[in-house]
Amino acid sequence: MAGGSRSPGASVTSRVLAVLGAFDAAHPALTLSDIARRSGLPLATAHRLVAELVTGRALARGVDGTYRIGVRLWEIGLLSPLHGQLREVALPYLQELYTTVRENVHLAVRDGDEALYVEKVTGHRAVPTISRAGGRLPLHATGVGKALLAYAPPEVIAAHLRGPLRRCTPYTIVEPGRLARELAAIRERGWARTHEEMTLGSCSVAVVVPGPDGAALAAIGVVGHSLGAAPQRLVPALRAAADQVAARLADEPHATQRATA
Amino acid sequence: MAGGSRSPGASVTSRVLAVLGAFDAAHPALTLSDIARRSGLPLATAHRLVAELVTGRALARGVDGTYRIGVRLWEIGLLSPLHGQLREVALPYLQELYTTVRENVHLAVRDGDEALYVEKVTGHRAVPTISRAGGRLPLHATGVGKALLAYAPPEVIAAHLRGPLRRCTPYTIVEPGRLARELAAIRERGWARTHEEMTLGSCSVAVVVPGPDGAALAAIGVVGHSLGAAPQRLVPALRAAADQVAARLADEPHATQRATA
Repeated sequence: MAGGSRSPGASVTSRVLAVLGAFDAAHPALTLSDIARRSGLPLATAHRLVAELVTGRALARGVDGTYRIGVRLWEIGLLSPLHGQLREVALPYLQELYTTVRENVHLAVRDGDEALYVEKVTGHRAVPTISRAGGRLPLHATGVGKALLAYAPPEVIAAHLRGPLRRCTPYTIVEPGRLARELAAIRERGWARTHEEMTLGSCSVAVVVPGPDGAALAAIGVVGHSLGAAPQRLVPALRAAADQVAARLADEPHATQRATA
Repeated sequence: MAGGSRSPGASVTSRVLAVLGAFDAAHPALTLSDIARRSGLPLATAHRLVAELVTGRALARGVDGTYRIGVRLWEIGLLSPLHGQLREVALPYLQELYTTVRENVHLAVRDGDEALYVEKVTGHRAVPTISRAGGRLPLHATGVGKALLAYAPPEVIAAHLRGPLRRCTPYTIVEPGRLARELAAIRERGWARTHEEMTLGSCSVAVVVPGPDGAALAAIGVVGHSLGAAPQRLVPALRAAADQVAARLADEPHATQRATA
């Protein structure tokens, strides 16, 4: 009870978020002591907050005693504009694009200095990729990331070029000068590509979804094994999908704001 | 500050969940006074909690001053087993099914007395439907819902038959005896169908994803305009997809628990 009596309400809110933030893609199921350790909370505090969150179905306790994110939090999270606006508008276009190219199709936004994957459309004929909806990958090593970075505000590009630029494979562009020239080339031709820069054996092509002020609202990309020989053959289909998504977003009130909030 | 000093930590957790629960599909963007009213909290308390949640990116404030669900909550919500396990395993099969039938493909679970839609795969050639990922519809009026109800535990069926059974269209089955016979017929033939029972002009066919103990882990359904003449032609493709999803889930440790938590 010490934790409860010490803490004003505001602090409890941040503790609740710390409990939820203990979960990530590599740790979707946690024991109570995992949660306490990863959130930096005393065990008694974690125990009390977890019990409250289970009652509210924000967490769920499995038969093995570990905790997972609950149905209510999943439902509420889907109300985010990233899902409810951007993803809902884009999904049919991503779907048709997948049906055409039969390679992984990605929708991503820039969140800080990372590419945040909003949706991935795939099937059994597509090469497995490490991306997943809700996942994050470096801007400079992915197709959607390089497209988003190329059309980011100058101060964002400058900060990213100052690095560090993580080397994901031997082909990742980690020299700032070379990356700057690559971004200029992307703006020049209107599309980005990668060749084994994030994952060996995978190539990608991507374009941005343009916003009303020229900013990039999102990026759409295709990832496959062997796009290498003539990746530009995929550009017209990608461009058409991105422009249709942009037009649909422009039709909706507050679309830009909702899509990027 | 009165709210803060009055409330022990546990109560603040439930207030945080009340703020988040003020948002729903019909109300994805709320003003501060909307949030206070819908959560039943004093304005000052709502103001303080909302500010904390914005700091933690669980909420985001738009340029119009309204609040929406933030990026962090969306990311955390996707860690739910419904998404990370069930949806990830099922998506490629749903995708291939869509490519085959070119009609809306749904993945749903039973949550209490509702069908909770986990994923919807669609394209521009499919008829628009009111379902959406994260949405809920009545069990007795939808294809996936009737399939899930038919294979639910007897006490769940009995409680549902006691009603009330909401009439969504003139064709919704709202007589308990008729619904009970329909559920028996679904168990007999192994698949469910609806004919304009949820939405006029829409028909559906659905099968369950069987779990190791014979319980239904989920249901997969197809919704279209004109499945009516011979809906059973879709059953083999649906059955194959559902059985493949079931086999994949059985391969994963704790799959049942994760998929239904």
